[in-house]
Amino acid sequence: MFWSKYFIPTLKETPAGTEAISHQLLLRSGLVHMLTSGVYSYLPLGLKILRNIEGIIREEMNAAGARELFLPCLQPIELWKQTGRDQTLAEVMIRFKDKRGREMCLGPTHEEVITDLVKNFVQSYRQLPVVLYQIQTKFRDETRTRFGIVRACEFIMKDAYSFDRDATGLKKNYDLMYDAYQKIFKRCGLETVIIEADSGAMGGDLSHEFLVPAAIGEDTILHCPSCNAYSAVAAERSEGKSCPQCRHGILKGQIAIELGHIFQLGTKYSQAQQAVFLDEDGKQKPMIMGCYGIGVSRVIAAIIEKNHDEKGIRWPREVAPFDVEILPIAGNDSAEIMELAHKYYADLTTTGYEVLLDDRPESAGVKFNDADLIGIPLRITIGKRNLVEGKVEIKNRLTNEVTLVSKNDVSAKLSEISKGLCLKN
Amino acid sequence: MFWSKYFIPTLKETPAGTEAISHQLLLRSGLVHMLTSGVYSYLPLGLKILRNIEGIIREEMNAAGARELFLPCLQPIELWKQTGRDQTLAEVMIRFKDKRGREMCLGPTHEEVITDLVKNFVQSYRQLPVVLYQIQTKFRDETRTRFGIVRACEFIMKDAYSFDRDATGLKKNYDLMYDAYQKIFKRCGLETVIIEADSGAMGGDLSHEFLVPAAIGEDTILHCPSCNAYSAVAAERSEGKSCPQCRHGILKGQIAIELGHIFQLGTKYSQAQQAVFLDEDGKQKPMIMGCYGIGVSRVIAAIIEKNHDEKGIRWPREVAPFDVEILPIAGNDSAEIMELAHKYYADLTTTGYEVLLDDRPESAGVKFNDADLIGIPLRITIGKRNLVEGKVEIKNRLTNEVTLVSKNDVSAKLSEISKGLCLKN
Repeated sequence: MFWSKYFIPTLKETPAGTEAISHQLLLRSGLVHMLTSGVYSYLPLGLKILRNIEGIIREEMNAAGARELFLPCLQPIELWKQTGRDQTLAEVMIRFKDKRGREMCLGPTHEEVITDLVKNFVQSYRQLPVVLYQIQTKFRDETRTRFGIVRACEFIMKDAYSFDRDATGLKKNYDLMYDAYQKIFKRCGLETVIIEADSGAMGGDLSHEFLVPAAIGEDTILHCPSCNAYSAVAAERSEGKSCPQCRHGILKGQIAIELGHIFQLGTKYSQAQQAVFLDEDGKQKPMIMGCYGIGVSRVIAAIIEKNHDEKGIRWPREVAPFDVEILPIAGNDSAEIMELAHKYYADLTTTGYEVLLDDRPESAGVKFNDADLIGIPLRITIGKRNLVEGKVEIKNRLTNEVTLVSKNDVSAKLSEISKGLCLKN
Repeated sequence: MFWSKYFIPTLKETPAGTEAISHQLLLRSGLVHMLTSGVYSYLPLGLKILRNIEGIIREEMNAAGARELFLPCLQPIELWKQTGRDQTLAEVMIRFKDKRGREMCLGPTHEEVITDLVKNFVQSYRQLPVVLYQIQTKFRDETRTRFGIVRACEFIMKDAYSFDRDATGLKKNYDLMYDAYQKIFKRCGLETVIIEADSGAMGGDLSHEFLVPAAIGEDTILHCPSCNAYSAVAAERSEGKSCPQCRHGILKGQIAIELGHIFQLGTKYSQAQQAVFLDEDGKQKPMIMGCYGIGVSRVIAAIIEKNHDEKGIRWPREVAPFDVEILPIAGNDSAEIMELAHKYYADLTTTGYEVLLDDRPESAGVKFNDADLIGIPLRITIGKRNLVEGKVEIKNRLTNEVTLVSKNDVSAKLSEISKGLCLKN
């Protein structure tokens, strides 16, 4: 891709009214644009990153045996009345009456819809287990949106649901999801802390949260600086009634971003919605459910929080929008430099790299700043001074290490560095 | 994929309250499920088809120089007030006030949002042209939903927008989109009729509609049975004031499904929303816009309308959810049959085919009916009688032609048939 033919509207200044670094960098590097508070557009570069993360999630979900479908945003309130969540989630639910008088809402989550769907098609234990997931836009009427895409009114989630005949089946699917989540976050370059958590409005018996300790976030977990262990903040502790201790030292509060939450729901929804099946023993039983969410848009913010320096973002390899950026410097005046840039572009594209060529007639300073800002992992800089010596510069944005290589050794050098970066290719 | 591990809830009976064949087959073959009138879930098989069509659209949009982004569903009404379309589209717009008192709507289309976005980032003629597109869920408060996913309250559209400095630029992008649309529909196996059309609520000077003449639809076009030419129904003609004639004969009304509509918008939106740029001559001018829509979910219905027989769907190759279906008959009792089925599955998957293996312990009748219903282009049937002779049956669902081949020649035979089908692989 040529920069001049793409749409990457970078900003020099930090936008007003932003507190989180990830929020600032998302806006400055032209990844997202705010339409109104809590509502964001994904610009082409941001969408590529989103799609890469979705791709990772899809691969791991499919590998865990879950099948993808796509549920509607519009949902009839009568379904929510069956579980009483029209009341318990009233605070965040966007509701309206349509022109034919139907009471509708925009899905803040999809337990009721999926339970209704599976109930329609599954009658026998022979059809179980069923594990389904989707990657969908969710809506919440948040009055206090925060940290850009971290707490927004419209956001993208992966939500999976398992239906089993017994607790053993649920446990098996829960464990598969638990493992899949670990793989997903690892591939996104994130180290997560997993804690047993409160099931809240979802209900059910057991749940685990996947969190990333960061400078921002809406959760607080406890951390022991001596042994580096994490644990949940129990309700009474957070009220300050006791000072919790690990056996190595006193626990400190640590802010964290919640990225995933998995729940053993049991029969809360299947009983309320009559999602029953005929078991081998001839008895009608409610299906045993689990649900498994990942805040997909939120993952982007967490990655930026954990992977940036004062100059910009440093994308982990698997989520990076491009593999390599080529920077011809003062190149538009110099036929030799542009020719080499296009030669590298053609060669590397053929090899299978996704390449961005900054072909704009901008100064070296503007190009360097933008390249550091958008954070493509590998960069080839072609400048006059080095080229006289027959050399070009390769920068690893993840380590900020710079290497001068012979202009004919670029491909070999990139492939060497790439190996260390666990390249997609 | 093994059928037993997938989720394809086929129905034997035609669901009540359905008039269109495509609607009936969508439901019967387990592609979609109705949540409430005008609101559908895409089940795994249906989602695969949707994604294949989206993939075709993406390839052709990218090739035409358009860049993908992702705009929000939630939109502030104040934007719509700038163009007055809060009034002209009031009939179909879903509106609500959120908890902080903001007047919002769910996007029935995105001209206002994209114009606002581009206006924020483009100041100079040097940054033009800009062509952006998205594949997004749209919402319309339809009181008369019809034909299943053809006229729905929630549906998926591809919408592209071009911004140019002059009419020549607009014309160039309009022609690129016109050509891309022809390629897209052709790859979807559809023959479209293109007619110059009324610009309606979109406004602008020139527009073209891409329609598929079918048994159902909401548009009527004129057709000359003698020369097979199509033309638009002019307003005064449709009121019956004259009896329109082609020079070869009298024109007849023909029902059609509108799949695409492209518009030369001109400056309607850019003037109303102050989307201006500084031209080379130092003058501030409004950007010249075009917009280009495809009803993605509607394409699925049109394909089914044009590609089915009394037994079910016959998917054109590029949109088919799988390339090959393997049918072991009475196979679960017979180790030899199942072994061969799994061998074919492994071999063909390795070759690059997407394969569905119907491993259910169902009767031959159920398997044959379901296979005809879901309409995978190629089918291998492994049955006892033929296997005694060392043979299996290959069926081309597009022609319904059946060939007996030696069990060792399956791969070669499939590759031969595939060539005629313009296989993806």
